[in-house]
Amino acid sequence: MLTYRIPARCGFALVLRRGQLLRVIDPEGEQVADVVTFSESDPRERLSNGRSFDYGGRIYFTTGHTLYSDRSNPMLTIVSDTVGRHDFLLTPCSREMFRIQYGVTGKQPNCLDNLAKAIARRGVDPALIPTPFNAFMNVDVLPDGGLDIRPPRSKAGDSITLRAEMELLVAVSAWAAGRCNNYRFKPVDIEVTDG
Amino acid sequence: MLTYRIPARCGFALVLRRGQLLRVIDPEGEQVADVVTFSESDPRERLSNGRSFDYGGRIYFTTGHTLYSDRSNPMLTIVSDTVGRHDFLLTPCSREMFRIQYGVTGKQPNCLDNLAKAIARRGVDPALIPTPFNAFMNVDVLPDGGLDIRPPRSKAGDSITLRAEMELLVAVSAWAAGRCNNYRFKPVDIEVTDG
Repeated sequence: MLTYRIPARCGFALVLRRGQLLRVIDPEGEQVADVVTFSESDPRERLSNGRSFDYGGRIYFTTGHTLYSDRSNPMLTIVSDTVGRHDFLLTPCSREMFRIQYGVTGKQPNCLDNLAKAIARRGVDPALIPTPFNAFMNVDVLPDGGLDIRPPRSKAGDSITLRAEMELLVAVSAWAAGRCNNYRFKPVDIEVTDG
Repeated sequence: MLTYRIPARCGFALVLRRGQLLRVIDPEGEQVADVVTFSESDPRERLSNGRSFDYGGRIYFTTGHTLYSDRSNPMLTIVSDTVGRHDFLLTPCSREMFRIQYGVTGKQPNCLDNLAKAIARRGVDPALIPTPFNAFMNVDVLPDGGLDIRPPRSKAGDSITLRAEMELLVAVSAWAAGRCNNYRFKPVDIEVTDG
């Protein structure tokens, strides 16, 4: 078993063999972890929220549901989930997002840079980063289509476990924008087992 | 003014200069048109539903709303809209989608191939196709996150007009899966004006 603690507002990448299990753990509670995946054999094949919405007929995913690539291949299946609410709509916080939404300029830790750095080290073009699966992020869709970002439902020790359905490059970032984490930045733990 | 009729279940691509207006017209009613856009200067910069959801704080877009690229730049602003309901969640119908969702094998017209052919002719890698803005597609998000695809609200002659906020390669397909179009395949008209 591989275990790794991703420090607050940092990122990490790893390769999963088909059938391996990735457990993403929220050790302190109310912390989002965004997850992006790429096919190891051709990283232009990436996680796709739209394909997953299509085949799942839903926007919220939990145990038993599958996340698809933009080429319609299963990438990850959720095999256990102690929280039951995750987001697949919103994009990683980024320098541009902090500027546009909060008027913050200059460099500060953000998920897009974390994911970009983590995959660039493995030779994958950061321009390919898709909309992540945001584990533990709690976004309500209101009847008029408005989005309401609420504190995560995860408590200390909660986790979601995903099985790799192909050989994958996976990058995970400990979400670095305040509102989604109830205004406290915490680490994220990951565990990889052979399933 | 450029005008073009996209035949039923076909696609088309064109370049928009900054400030030009693209009007997408449903000439017969209840027909979806999916729209994808790429920066002319670097087609790896593409339309992003996730960025648009973030900055708009919503999943439904109409007059006055802006659609963003994955690099957080405005790509299109909706300047008029006689329908008021479009989708930005679902991916283009494709050979794989027909196989997975309907058990249909073999070649048949589909939006992904239409978009791929249209942009490949202009030198853009089809692997870059993002989740489209699906004009006139009517998808309800149920309280539990389930998706309910309903007939478009558009009637004959309805349209949506989008202003290019940068130089864009745009591809449009007359949606080729039955359910979204109330089970009849119809053409889509487009008009380009200088704004």
